[in-house]
Amino acid sequence: MKVNLERIENDLFELKKIGFNPEDKGIYRPGLTDPDMEARRWLAERFEQNGLVTHMDGAANVIGRLGDPDKPAIAVGSHADTVPCGGMFDGALGVIAALECVRVINENELELEHPLEIIATSEEEGRFGGMFGAQALVGEVKPDWIESARSADGEYLTEALARFDLDIPGVLRAKRVPGPIMAFLELHIEQGPVLEMERKSIGVVEGISGVFKWMVKLIGKADHAGTAPMHMRSDAFMGLADFAHEIGRIISEEGTDKSRLTIGKVDLKPGYAHTIPGEVDFTLVGRDLDEEVMHRLADTCRKVLSSIARKHRLHFDYEERSWLSPQPCNETVMKHFEESARNLGLDYMVMPSGAGHDVQFFARKVPAGMVFVPSVGGVSHAPDEWTHWDDVENGANVLLNTVVSLAQKKKPF
Amino acid sequence: MKVNLERIENDLFELKKIGFNPEDKGIYRPGLTDPDMEARRWLAERFEQNGLVTHMDGAANVIGRLGDPDKPAIAVGSHADTVPCGGMFDGALGVIAALECVRVINENELELEHPLEIIATSEEEGRFGGMFGAQALVGEVKPDWIESARSADGEYLTEALARFDLDIPGVLRAKRVPGPIMAFLELHIEQGPVLEMERKSIGVVEGISGVFKWMVKLIGKADHAGTAPMHMRSDAFMGLADFAHEIGRIISEEGTDKSRLTIGKVDLKPGYAHTIPGEVDFTLVGRDLDEEVMHRLADTCRKVLSSIARKHRLHFDYEERSWLSPQPCNETVMKHFEESARNLGLDYMVMPSGAGHDVQFFARKVPAGMVFVPSVGGVSHAPDEWTHWDDVENGANVLLNTVVSLAQKKKPF
Repeated sequence: MKVNLERIENDLFELKKIGFNPEDKGIYRPGLTDPDMEARRWLAERFEQNGLVTHMDGAANVIGRLGDPDKPAIAVGSHADTVPCGGMFDGALGVIAALECVRVINENELELEHPLEIIATSEEEGRFGGMFGAQALVGEVKPDWIESARSADGEYLTEALARFDLDIPGVLRAKRVPGPIMAFLELHIEQGPVLEMERKSIGVVEGISGVFKWMVKLIGKADHAGTAPMHMRSDAFMGLADFAHEIGRIISEEGTDKSRLTIGKVDLKPGYAHTIPGEVDFTLVGRDLDEEVMHRLADTCRKVLSSIARKHRLHFDYEERSWLSPQPCNETVMKHFEESARNLGLDYMVMPSGAGHDVQFFARKVPAGMVFVPSVGGVSHAPDEWTHWDDVENGANVLLNTVVSLAQKKKPF
Repeated sequence: MKVNLERIENDLFELKKIGFNPEDKGIYRPGLTDPDMEARRWLAERFEQNGLVTHMDGAANVIGRLGDPDKPAIAVGSHADTVPCGGMFDGALGVIAALECVRVINENELELEHPLEIIATSEEEGRFGGMFGAQALVGEVKPDWIESARSADGEYLTEALARFDLDIPGVLRAKRVPGPIMAFLELHIEQGPVLEMERKSIGVVEGISGVFKWMVKLIGKADHAGTAPMHMRSDAFMGLADFAHEIGRIISEEGTDKSRLTIGKVDLKPGYAHTIPGEVDFTLVGRDLDEEVMHRLADTCRKVLSSIARKHRLHFDYEERSWLSPQPCNETVMKHFEESARNLGLDYMVMPSGAGHDVQFFARKVPAGMVFVPSVGGVSHAPDEWTHWDDVENGANVLLNTVVSLAQKKKPF
């Protein structure tokens, strides 16, 4: 059983038109904006045309059901919003591929043991600082968070909701997990370079990496770069450089091949060419799929920073801004994805997801898993985000076969 | 023969009042501003009260002569301008100490073989990007530079000159080296930590370090910090960190104890915590007293940066923004400073000046040298700039004895 690639292509190009900016070729459908809601209406119509009983819930998730309205469903989907100036695959591919699964199931008049729900989740890209749609579906949004959440451009989440006649009670009523939804499957582009580099067409995701974010401060002494000899300096930047230089060793010794440590933002004070930096503030973001490893990485970073600070006569301070635990995917879902890939003769690999996805919220409550297809050059969140059509087709076929195989089992989990 | 410290203290406190801001306790006498010119008028009056034939030249240098008006003079002085929010010793000490030398010479009715000139140079702090007063005195300002020079706050040098009835022809007529000035001596605070750390009260400056400034660019690839594995990254910041880590080795292998390499300004792009830096722009400032060493340091930095860029798959580019050659001080002047210190029973050290000073322009044309006194904590260009009074007294005594000893010689050079 195979998907029809042409229909997927057509749908993706149609959906791309909504929020498309011809000047920079980017797509602008940030969560709970007019283009985002236009895309949701277009998707709802498409869902209905394909025989799905469709509604938009109180959190702007578009949900189309195939089969018994009262039994728990296997949900399939992804998000319909984009970052500003995003690409045409991120999120959209998972929604359109899920819709294509329904079309193939309908055409083949397949009998399923369980109903399906096709879901276009809302606000996954975090315009308001979370994964709003998925969190609402699993009942993990609280009224006081909704009231205080605000976008970078200053709009309150409640204002955005009100513009589309949505409100807090409606958001809270959107919860369907556990209950109407018994599992969640997602197809998504990798948004990274691994599958392309490893020449694999399918990535079966074993879990979403946990992530911690630190704000680190090293304080030394701002001196004249000419008058202070090298050995009399307390150069905050040299402390940072020595630490960054140790990152490879820290991961080799304490981490795994799934560990990441990244310094993405650095602010030197005073930041003059002829002045020794007296202070540096920088971000340190760490990830791994194993929370024990995350703790080891964090502990080691703290020790190494302390030791380097002493060596350079610096004051060291840090603040843990966030700590998100890793979220493993469901093993049964993974096995079915792997089996589908094997049956289709596709070369796949099991890999972590370093980026966050809706799946991580579903996976806390019900069996959930996701499958990746390669991103050309690892590019995403940009107009030149691209996935080759044969990879799109392969990914959609893996999704289709997995969904059907699970939905045909009496007790899939 | 000794200076009178009380007179020096009184003069420094009087001069400090001009441009003093009671709120931040800083002194504001940037070159060619109203407070700067008020200080120059006050100094000119003080010079005249002490028997000096005084004038302000076309570049706003205040010059007071003791002795024969037609013979070449030994000039002694420093600058009278300050950085914004500066301290009370930087520049001012050298002018006031020179004036005190004249007072002691007058009181002792000393016969000198050569006339003296006490000079309060103008605009040494580089508000218009040079050392305007000293450059005018040695004939190293060109009309087209004067016309184009502009301060950070947008004032043209010509506008500043015009406000005080000064003009380009007058600036060009300010040249006195070689000619009326045969040598230049300067007492200055160290503005660095060395004398204090080494517990020396006097530093005899052997030369002004040369300095080069590079703008360096490393370009990699901005990727998602979660999805890109460590070994697939082209992290521009990690390239910089690895280079910074090598600076100690580069100086050990290719430099001297007078070498300095400083990274003072770093700009990461895009500069987000969750994005691998795709580009970094940073400044690299190098110094040494030996131009050969400067070349070796620069060559090695280029090689190390190239090699690190290859390792991290980065594009490396740099632009040499400036290259100023080192300027040795005159050996006879140095010997006289050293002898004076020894005669006074003072512990001194010979050292380079990592910061620029008026002396470097005089030294290109005539015998010139300078002597440092300790800066508490190495602090300068700040309200808490301080030099202990006994160090001030010692430095002024070394200056006095050196000036007298040179001026009493028939052929000092």
